[in-house]
Amino acid sequence: MERIARIVTRRAIPPGEVHVGDDAAVLSPLVGRTIISTDAAVWGVHLDAHLFPLEDLGFKAVAAAVSDLAAMGAYARGVVVAVGSPPGTDLEELHRGIADAAAATGCPVVGGDLTRSRDVFVAVTVIGDCPGGNPVLRRGAREGDVLVVTGALGRAAAGLRRRREGAPLADELVVAHRRPWPRLREGRAARDAGVHAMMDLSDGLGLDLHRLADASGVGFELDDVPVARGATPDEAIAGGEDYELLIATGDLARLQMIFDDRGLAAPIVIGRVVADHDRRRWRGREFVRRGYQHQL
Amino acid sequence: MERIARIVTRRAIPPGEVHVGDDAAVLSPLVGRTIISTDAAVWGVHLDAHLFPLEDLGFKAVAAAVSDLAAMGAYARGVVVAVGSPPGTDLEELHRGIADAAAATGCPVVGGDLTRSRDVFVAVTVIGDCPGGNPVLRRGAREGDVLVVTGALGRAAAGLRRRREGAPLADELVVAHRRPWPRLREGRAARDAGVHAMMDLSDGLGLDLHRLADASGVGFELDDVPVARGATPDEAIAGGEDYELLIATGDLARLQMIFDDRGLAAPIVIGRVVADHDRRRWRGREFVRRGYQHQL
Repeated sequence: MERIARIVTRRAIPPGEVHVGDDAAVLSPLVGRTIISTDAAVWGVHLDAHLFPLEDLGFKAVAAAVSDLAAMGAYARGVVVAVGSPPGTDLEELHRGIADAAAATGCPVVGGDLTRSRDVFVAVTVIGDCPGGNPVLRRGAREGDVLVVTGALGRAAAGLRRRREGAPLADELVVAHRRPWPRLREGRAARDAGVHAMMDLSDGLGLDLHRLADASGVGFELDDVPVARGATPDEAIAGGEDYELLIATGDLARLQMIFDDRGLAAPIVIGRVVADHDRRRWRGREFVRRGYQHQL
Repeated sequence: MERIARIVTRRAIPPGEVHVGDDAAVLSPLVGRTIISTDAAVWGVHLDAHLFPLEDLGFKAVAAAVSDLAAMGAYARGVVVAVGSPPGTDLEELHRGIADAAAATGCPVVGGDLTRSRDVFVAVTVIGDCPGGNPVLRRGAREGDVLVVTGALGRAAAGLRRRREGAPLADELVVAHRRPWPRLREGRAARDAGVHAMMDLSDGLGLDLHRLADASGVGFELDDVPVARGATPDEAIAGGEDYELLIATGDLARLQMIFDDRGLAAPIVIGRVVADHDRRRWRGREFVRRGYQHQL
């Protein structure tokens, strides 16, 4: 238990804070509203246990949860992790992946729980805040908004396919599957640019674009789906787990300027929002609802 | 999914807050430091699946997590719940238990995640705050402090024993096992009384008293262990899951006065803190470290 605490606690604990070891963790005051999200990942469901090391389960679970903060334009302030595992599980390996993701996202692991179970599962909760403004919700997209994504799609699904075909763990697309990168900086830049709606593409554009439209009560005209190099169009639409951000903005120039100013890759325009809730078109055809299902 | 959201969302959502349905939940600003804790409960490990309904797993998981806030003297502000389950699980029943505990503790369910797994597991994260002061940690007990608990011990373990012997679910001690009651009000009263150290008795006095002493670098002289009616002395010491609070205070009169003033049951004196870290005595004998292990 103490060895695991040492693995996940890599940074000095700020004065007045308490992380692992008491009944609960104590964090410095957050600024403004509190943002919180929880995500569970199960070994063999969310990650193929025959193709990937256990470390990756920990990394992916934390990254997926942090991505939910990115999708609000929030700052990540802390993560707590509840782990279930059968006897004999290499908990140190699992927690190295958790710690790697926490370090990569600048979000300290402040607490945890270990329990026995048949499955290995990692339930991650992240908290964050939104200094200087409100979080960006899914529900704010308006007629005439431009739809953009923060990067080309399909990398994670292509990486899984390549791994199944025998590609090494270090393959660039396989890494995109194993070690997804939450778009925290892009999310904050989008919030600062006053975008109207935002979410992360965890289940694929083919599901998530519909969800954003549903939440906002609007439709869309999708012109182009940017397909990552090495991925298929189908992987780009329905693959999921890319964790790029989907954004609806009424001021594309401002968004581009702030992204550019912060050294972020230019947002990619994919279409626009229309008023008719039932209009869901891709290059003039119906854009069918489909996306990632948690199956191997 | 929407039916489950309706089950857990019983209260009106305050303006500016977002609970279930977006990438993350949004809560009103917390006051002062943020308190956060996570706990996982597994069906068949933390609760005997042959003796108790699934509802109770949800209730216990939330209650155990909220109890960690009670142990800091905090207010509970929100809970998020990640649930894993195999196909065919009655998720509505499970979430009724979650909602019951949330209602009983005044802590709204603000977010969740559902996933597939072999085990049924419930990973609960609670957040809270401590207006007007600091949380009470385990590490502050000092020589000469009086040790008290908030109630007689052994009820949960006795309830499990009675259930195994055929007692009905409505039996008072069985209810103590199924539906533990986090001592939020007692915890806040203790914090307001300026106590030096506090924790909840989740694993039994036989383990937890040692943990408090370890964290504070002190020893203790235990005079008396209050055994609940219907429980055995062994259940009171090593049974666990009572979720009464263990408190070290330098001003017993003040603690008693505040408890009395707020209509709380009088704290029960069990012993006192001594400077010698190695001195762990119960009625003149060594107080052996033993407590609840998560086994059926």
